[in-house]
Amino acid sequence: MKRYYSYENFRNDTCKLIAEVKSFEPEAIVAIARGGLSLSHCMAEGLNIRDVQSIRTELYDKEHKREHLSLFGECHLKDVQRVLVVDDIADSGDTFAFIMKYLQKNFPEVSFHSCALFYKKTSQYEPDFWINEADAWIEFFWEKDFSPLESLL
Amino acid sequence: MKRYYSYENFRNDTCKLIAEVKSFEPEAIVAIARGGLSLSHCMAEGLNIRDVQSIRTELYDKEHKREHLSLFGECHLKDVQRVLVVDDIADSGDTFAFIMKYLQKNFPEVSFHSCALFYKKTSQYEPDFWINEADAWIEFFWEKDFSPLESLL
Repeated sequence: MKRYYSYENFRNDTCKLIAEVKSFEPEAIVAIARGGLSLSHCMAEGLNIRDVQSIRTELYDKEHKREHLSLFGECHLKDVQRVLVVDDIADSGDTFAFIMKYLQKNFPEVSFHSCALFYKKTSQYEPDFWINEADAWIEFFWEKDFSPLESLL
Repeated sequence: MKRYYSYENFRNDTCKLIAEVKSFEPEAIVAIARGGLSLSHCMAEGLNIRDVQSIRTELYDKEHKREHLSLFGECHLKDVQRVLVVDDIADSGDTFAFIMKYLQKNFPEVSFHSCALFYKKTSQYEPDFWINEADAWIEFFWEKDFSPLESLL
């Protein structure tokens, strides 16, 4: 089952998420690219946070033996105490788990909280804040609205 | 004069921008945060580019004498030849000019092209690709739709 997640859905949920994370008083946002980029942008506007940084992971099959996640990009988190880590969905949870571990190890003095629009119950990682349980394959508007076929419509 | 730039406007223009930049065949995107984050995300989806990185500048008034731009974040551009630099608007053009200079200096072997949704004729920098001339104060949907007041509506 596929569920199209429109901009209107996104807008409503992001406003809810902004209201929820406010108690944490984040000073900076780490966006997990690509999925967390639009959400980070809109949350940063709503929370009035200028410091938005992005990192990303890539999955690769090392010599066809087992899958590894590699991290690309670095965070610069001086002079901040509370940082929000943002992605669209915690699906397998691999990316979130990997990135939270990296951040907590490299910035032990910083308090990290995570958030996502969707959380799947089978995820190995549960974000601190999330809005919807993912009970279907979510097709985010950014995945659908800008494909070459869509632009011909 | 203020012009609200809705998600529907953004969707239409971003599809046009994607069609235009295709000839350049970019392999990676550098998003200028915050303004270029959502655009970079959606363009990356449409262009099927996984490598999206972000940098940002901040204006500060050094000892009240003159304004300086500072760069935050680093780009990692190994093994790519063509990189697209993305922001929402070339307004004064200061940010684009500063970032393009930084990128060209630090990655002389990479070909950089820039793009924006809006270009103001008085900008000191004209992006390689742009869609609209900015003849008003543009209020982007991400600046308007997620403000605390909006979420109460």
